[in-house]
Amino acid sequence: MKVNNKNYRTVWLGRNDTVKIIDQTKLPFKFEISSLLMVEEFYSAIKHMQVRGAGCIGATAGYGMYVATKKYNGNYEKIEEAGKFLKSSRPTAVNLEYAVNKQLKALKNAPIEDRIKVAKQTAKLIANEDVESCRKIGEHGLKLIEKIHSEKKKRIDILTHCNAGWLAFVDYGSATAPIYLAHDKGIDVHVWVDETRPRNQGARLTSWELINHGVENTLIADNTGGLLMREGQVDLVIVGADRVARNGDTANKIGTYLKALAAKDNKVPFYVALPSSTFDWNLKNGKNIPIEVRNPNEITEISGLLGGREETVELTHRFATAANYSFDITPSRLITGFITERGICKANEKSILELFPEKLNSFTFS
Amino acid sequence: MKVNNKNYRTVWLGRNDTVKIIDQTKLPFKFEISSLLMVEEFYSAIKHMQVRGAGCIGATAGYGMYVATKKYNGNYEKIEEAGKFLKSSRPTAVNLEYAVNKQLKALKNAPIEDRIKVAKQTAKLIANEDVESCRKIGEHGLKLIEKIHSEKKKRIDILTHCNAGWLAFVDYGSATAPIYLAHDKGIDVHVWVDETRPRNQGARLTSWELINHGVENTLIADNTGGLLMREGQVDLVIVGADRVARNGDTANKIGTYLKALAAKDNKVPFYVALPSSTFDWNLKNGKNIPIEVRNPNEITEISGLLGGREETVELTHRFATAANYSFDITPSRLITGFITERGICKANEKSILELFPEKLNSFTFS
Repeated sequence: MKVNNKNYRTVWLGRNDTVKIIDQTKLPFKFEISSLLMVEEFYSAIKHMQVRGAGCIGATAGYGMYVATKKYNGNYEKIEEAGKFLKSSRPTAVNLEYAVNKQLKALKNAPIEDRIKVAKQTAKLIANEDVESCRKIGEHGLKLIEKIHSEKKKRIDILTHCNAGWLAFVDYGSATAPIYLAHDKGIDVHVWVDETRPRNQGARLTSWELINHGVENTLIADNTGGLLMREGQVDLVIVGADRVARNGDTANKIGTYLKALAAKDNKVPFYVALPSSTFDWNLKNGKNIPIEVRNPNEITEISGLLGGREETVELTHRFATAANYSFDITPSRLITGFITERGICKANEKSILELFPEKLNSFTFS
Repeated sequence: MKVNNKNYRTVWLGRNDTVKIIDQTKLPFKFEISSLLMVEEFYSAIKHMQVRGAGCIGATAGYGMYVATKKYNGNYEKIEEAGKFLKSSRPTAVNLEYAVNKQLKALKNAPIEDRIKVAKQTAKLIANEDVESCRKIGEHGLKLIEKIHSEKKKRIDILTHCNAGWLAFVDYGSATAPIYLAHDKGIDVHVWVDETRPRNQGARLTSWELINHGVENTLIADNTGGLLMREGQVDLVIVGADRVARNGDTANKIGTYLKALAAKDNKVPFYVALPSSTFDWNLKNGKNIPIEVRNPNEITEISGLLGGREETVELTHRFATAANYSFDITPSRLITGFITERGICKANEKSILELFPEKLNSFTFS
C-alpha cells in the first residue's frame, strides 16, 4: 500500500536482488528501509520484530532462504541448516516454518545448478501468494462494505482492533484489505482504530498505515468501542485472527472478545478476516488454545518520542505488579462470519467446511 | 487508609488548623503532602486536580470555606464571594457546589462572632459524612464478599475499573470500601486493576492505593478482563459511578460497559458502589446523559517517569487523529446491584426506591 504516495510491500527484492524490508520497530516515528544481506540479519530482523505478522514473517523467511542458497551456492545440507536457524528466530510462527519448508522442498527437487534461480522464484512465489490471498480477502470483504454503503449512502464507520494490516502481511493485510479496496474504489470509509494496549499495535501501526494510504481514521482507547456501538457510530467490525478452531472459536489479540460482545449487544456485524492458513483444522474448539503470557513490563512501561528520540518511561509505582495476557478467545456465537480468500462463511464448522471441503476429513483431534 | 503504614485521609486539618492534602498529581511516583493556606490555593488545587474525585473535592471545598471565613473574619458577603470563586474551579462537580452551599447556609444562620467556629465544624462534618457514607458502603459490600468467601473458601478475585478508591473520597472510597474492609478483616482478597486508558487512573491511583494499604493486586490492560472472566479468574466486579439514572442506567468511566457485558456473559456478579448523592433522581434513564469528550492528547501522549523525572512522550505519528470519550453508559440490565450507604438494591427503579423511599415523588423529569 502507499507510503508517501509510493506503493510498497513490507518485504521485496530491490536493486541487485538485495532484500529490503520496512523496519517496523521504528514506526510510527521513522519510515526506515533496511537491507538484509546475510542470513544472520534475517534471523535478527524476525527475532527483533523489524518484520512481524504471519504473512510478513513468512515472506521474509522465504527471501532469507534465497540469500542462504546464494551464500552456499546450492549446497542443500548447508541451506537446510540455515533453514533450521531461521525457524528458531520465532519458533511459534507457523508461516515461518511453512516458508522455510516450501523452499527446502523446491530446492531438494532441483538440480544444484538451478537452485539459486529456484530459490528466487520460490521466494517471490511465497510473497505473491500472500499478496494474492489478502487481495482476495479484500474483494470478498468489499462486497460487505458495498452492501452497507448502498443502504447507508453515507460514510461507513469500521472498527478494528490491533494490526491485521498490510504491515502484518506483504500487502493489503487481512482485516484492512476490504477497507483499502473500498477506499481505492472511492467509497467513503472511516476507521476507528483501537490503540490495542499494551503493545499499541493500533496506535503505532494501523493508524500509521491508514494515514499513509489516505484512509480517514480515528485512534481511540480500547475502552471506547462499546460506547461508539451504542451510539450507532460503528457500521461494521473487522478484526484479524491468530488461530481459528474448526467450530469458529477465534484466538486474537487480547480485547477482541470484549468488542465482539459489544457488537452482539448492539447488532453490529462482527467479521474476522483471515487467510485460510490461520484455521487450525485439528482444533475442535477454542477451549484448549494456550494463551501467551508476556512480560509485565509491557504494561508498566511504554516507549514514545521525547525530543526526537524514542524513550521508555515508567507508568506505575515501582512496586506495582502487572499481568500481561496477549490473546483471548472469542466464541463463534459472537462472530457474524469469516472473510477468507475463498469467500465469506458463517462462524460454524458446517459453513467453514463448505468453503474448504478438502478439510472435511482432516480432523485428527482425539 | 494506609500509606507507609500510617493512616491518612485525602484532606485533613493539620497542626495549627492548617489544611493538608495529598497532592494526587504527583502519584504514583511521589507521595507529597501540600498545605493549602489561601483560598486561591484551594481553587488551584481543585482546578489542577491535586485533589480529584467527588467526595474529595467536596471536602476540600468545605475546608476552603473555613479558610475563607477566617480570612474575612466572618464577613458573609466576602465569604459568599469566595464560595462563588471556589465553585468556578470545576463547574460540573456536584459535591463542590454541595459543600460550598452547606457552609453558606450554616454561616448565614450563625452570629458573626461564631462563624469561624461554625465553619470549622461544618468543614469537619462534610468530611466526616463522606467518610461515614463510604464506610457504610464498605460494610454492605463486605457481606457480598463474605458470602462468596464462605462458598469459595479461597482467595477472592475482584475486578475494578478506574479509581473509585479512597483517593476519590476522603477515606475508604466507594468501589474499594468493601475490599478494604474485607482485607482488614483478614479475608484473602486480590484485585484485578484495569489500567483505565487514557488517563490511567487504575495504573496511577488504584494500584498505588492498594499497594500502600497492603491489598494484593495486579494491574492489567483494559482489554484483559473478558479473558479473565471466561477463565473463571474473577469472582466479583465492583466499579464506581459518576451518575446513575432512576432506572439504574449508570454513567461511569469509559470501558465500564464492556466489563459489564463480559460479566453478564460469564455470570460474574457486577456491582456499582456509590454514595446516594450519585443518583440523579431527575433522570429517567441513561439515554440523555451527555458524554464528556476530552482532549485527544490524552490518547496520543502519555507521561511517566524517566530518570527520576516525570516526562511526556508522544505515542503516535504526528498526523494521527484521536477521539477521547470519557464515559459510557452501562444499561441497568447488565448490573447485578448497587451498593449504597443504606444497603444493597437491584438495578431497577422499584428496588432503588425501596432504599430511598423519600425520593418516590422527587421525579421532576418532563
